Amino acid sequence: MTAPFPTGVYCAATTPFNADLSVDQGLFTSHCQRLLDDGCTGIAMLGTTGEANSLSSRERMALLDAVVKSGIAPSKLLPGTGVASIMETVELTKHAVANGVGAVVMLPPFYYKGVSDDGIVDAYTAVIERVADPRLRVVLYHIPQMSAVPISLDVIDRLRKRFPEIVVGIKDSAGEFANMSAIVERFPGFSVLVGADPLMLKLLPLGGAGCITAASNLVSRELATVFNGFNDPAKQAEVAAAQERIVATRNAVSTYVQLPSLKVLLAKRDNNDNWLRVRPPLTGLSASEAAKVRESLSV
Amino acid sequence: MTAPFPTGVYCAATTPFNADLSVDQGLFTSHCQRLLDDGCTGIAMLGTTGEANSLSSRERMALLDAVVKSGIAPSKLLPGTGVASIMETVELTKHAVANGVGAVVMLPPFYYKGVSDDGIVDAYTAVIERVADPRLRVVLYHIPQMSAVPISLDVIDRLRKRFPEIVVGIKDSAGEFANMSAIVERFPGFSVLVGADPLMLKLLPLGGAGCITAASNLVSRELATVFNGFNDPAKQAEVAAAQERIVATRNAVSTYVQLPSLKVLLAKRDNNDNWLRVRPPLTGLSASEAAKVRESLSV
Repeated sequence: MTAPFPTGVYCAATTPFNADLSVDQGLFTSHCQRLLDDGCTGIAMLGTTGEANSLSSRERMALLDAVVKSGIAPSKLLPGTGVASIMETVELTKHAVANGVGAVVMLPPFYYKGVSDDGIVDAYTAVIERVADPRLRVVLYHIPQMSAVPISLDVIDRLRKRFPEIVVGIKDSAGEFANMSAIVERFPGFSVLVGADPLMLKLLPLGGAGCITAASNLVSRELATVFNGFNDPAKQAEVAAAQERIVATRNAVSTYVQLPSLKVLLAKRDNNDNWLRVRPPLTGLSASEAAKVRESLSV
Repeated sequence: MTAPFPTGVYCAATTPFNADLSVDQGLFTSHCQRLLDDGCTGIAMLGTTGEANSLSSRERMALLDAVVKSGIAPSKLLPGTGVASIMETVELTKHAVANGVGAVVMLPPFYYKGVSDDGIVDAYTAVIERVADPRLRVVLYHIPQMSAVPISLDVIDRLRKRFPEIVVGIKDSAGEFANMSAIVERFPGFSVLVGADPLMLKLLPLGGAGCITAASNLVSRELATVFNGFNDPAKQAEVAAAQERIVATRNAVSTYVQLPSLKVLLAKRDNNDNWLRVRPPLTGLSASEAAKVRESLSV
């Protein structure tokens, strides 16, 4: 059994927008560098928290290019590349692999609902076979509250057997601990990355590989402390303090809708309103909601 | 009050695929011509039945170009242009308008769930303002069983008030007659297009504008008979016979999952297996299911 990859604390980096709703690539890139300086293992850019599905394919590729060009090691990047069309997923994935990314985080096609496990396996298979690159590493993305297309343990099993070198992990963002621990137990060596910050500490002792989370935009340092110290008896006080801060941050961004709340706190931290904007169909917080979130946490 | 536009029988044309899953543009184009010859008012290509969200933007635009190039009047086309990213929706919509289409059928952004009416109005507004073309005509697309983003009457009201010349109609594919009739009643002059073939006959006397349906791929002639004769006392026998055939066809394609069943019947009619293929995450019928569907209806 090889060690799971990816392993560590990955930030589901959120995306800042200029006044015309174009991506503020400079602010995003400097945010990524700060996350790495603060102890993140890498950046899971272009996910749900990054509003990737509100960007065009061209914008997604341009943002990845900008991050790589800024000097961040592409091996530390886990960009999201799964969209509704498998053909467009192939294009985004080829572009990411050509850039040398560590892995891609891949949603199943998410327009049609009520699809079968066969259809989900077919979709991943069609993409992997069309990308046809031995460097490809795929992290499956289970987020049924958004995709409405859950990834079952049976789907994982079939894809692992078919592509043992390529299908290396899963981001489990459903928030159900029982599902994450069942995957860890059933698939040794498979990377299970928690999508909810506070749960990482609970899954690591069972064999969890780390996290890809939203609050890490604000508490990457604390998550790194938990990841590095969870099994070190000498570090339990430090770990407990970090976990307390992680939980408080998660609570602060969960008072209202999570993403705009998170952006309010990033805008406060960086004193930069480009963090405040979201793309439709998401909406920003009201002034009073934003004030309450701002006051709820020092950043 | 002006007469609603679009008005009539529009086919939600399904899309055939070659063995490598590329679009069979030639077969699609000849299918569209046949639909018009059979009495369809126009073609609502690139919708849910057309697997549009399983195509890349490039493939969508290429297919529209091919249909226009084949000589079909672009004013008869109502292509779907709504995708998860408003920026990509803008691009697809601009391309459609530049091609002279009658209107576009526009899904709301469908990745994020639980979004507010404000967010949906913001999204349509952002697209319409960015397309910025007085020729644009938008048919909203209410299909919550797939998009998981319903279009409420309040959203219609706000968009109609803001863009009275542009937001001209809605395709209601939810299958709830009460919702369709409520829209007809509340918004005189607004085009309400039924998404379920058998319901057109019921909505027309209340002021419904017609349909955009899947079974019309097989029964466009009968739907045209219903549309043209529903209020003519001399044609009631003819209308009843047509309606009977429409209901039988709808039942035949609803034995199993609708789209692959419909494709089985088109493959039978045209003796062409390119109709059989679906793109993942959809899956074809089993051999025994396909046989049962084939036997259930003469085409």
